Amino acid sequence: MLNSLHDLYVEQLRDLYNAETQLVGALPRMMSAASSPQLKDAFQLHLNQTREHVTRLNQIFNQLGQSPVGEKCAAMEGLLKEGEQLMNEPGDPSVKDAALIAAAQRVEHYEIAGYGTVKAYAKFLDFDEAADLLDKTLDEEGETDKALTKLATGGMFTGGINKDAKKRK
Amino acid sequence: MLNSLHDLYVEQLRDLYNAETQLVGALPRMMSAASSPQLKDAFQLHLNQTREHVTRLNQIFNQLGQSPVGEKCAAMEGLLKEGEQLMNEPGDPSVKDAALIAAAQRVEHYEIAGYGTVKAYAKFLDFDEAADLLDKTLDEEGETDKALTKLATGGMFTGGINKDAKKRK
Repeated sequence: MLNSLHDLYVEQLRDLYNAETQLVGALPRMMSAASSPQLKDAFQLHLNQTREHVTRLNQIFNQLGQSPVGEKCAAMEGLLKEGEQLMNEPGDPSVKDAALIAAAQRVEHYEIAGYGTVKAYAKFLDFDEAADLLDKTLDEEGETDKALTKLATGGMFTGGINKDAKKRK
Repeated sequence: MLNSLHDLYVEQLRDLYNAETQLVGALPRMMSAASSPQLKDAFQLHLNQTREHVTRLNQIFNQLGQSPVGEKCAAMEGLLKEGEQLMNEPGDPSVKDAALIAAAQRVEHYEIAGYGTVKAYAKFLDFDEAADLLDKTLDEEGETDKALTKLATGGMFTGGINKDAKKRK
């Protein structure tokens, strides 16, 4: 029942909790599928962050006196299914790394939209501590997205995975 | 087969083509489910834009001499399934409008990530005309996302749907 913004807030938090839990399961497979050591490192770092995001959500649910379970995030399921399909396709390792980045950035954007939404609700509902926690996670999702763009297009740390992939035009 | 960045570019364009086509089918239902006239208008405007995005993708596929079909976008399927679940949940109209906005913003972010990726590939592959077309769509997806945030949190055009929903705390 969506009778109040509070109901919707809890529903959206549960969706994100389920999404993050699915992602904790998927990131090790993405790490194994990656060829670039920098990309493996980026996925490892994000796995650690994602576990922390789950902890933060648990903290918010504790404060609300609510259970975090009860929603199945169909969107994250679809996003990860798409990622699996790309991982299972045969091809050149650097092209597959670029594909993994493309899939991971879609996941990040899902979370950016989701956390942007619940942070706005938390502020409206005067849950200031929760809004701060959600803002921290939102920042980290944004940073991960930017780091993946750098890895793909070549930034400070790499010549760029897309460039390696382009050689195989 | 993902043997080259060109292969991945075509694969990602097909994913977006399928995603946009699914969205053209879903937006009229989202429009009917919305209560706020401003939200209905925003969905109508975005439906027109989405049809234009499909036309642009067709143009790019024509230039490539490739068919736009062949990919099923599992992520968009999941995103829209999640939106349908929210639409079917009973509740207060303004809370459901806030939920519709939350679902729509996740869709927009999926497309922002997707178009950001293919635009980068198009640039790398020296498809300048395609890069320009993809950039136009990317801009419109970003504008739609911002317009939805304004509708939810209250901006120039509205007192804010989240505010209406909050009254039902």
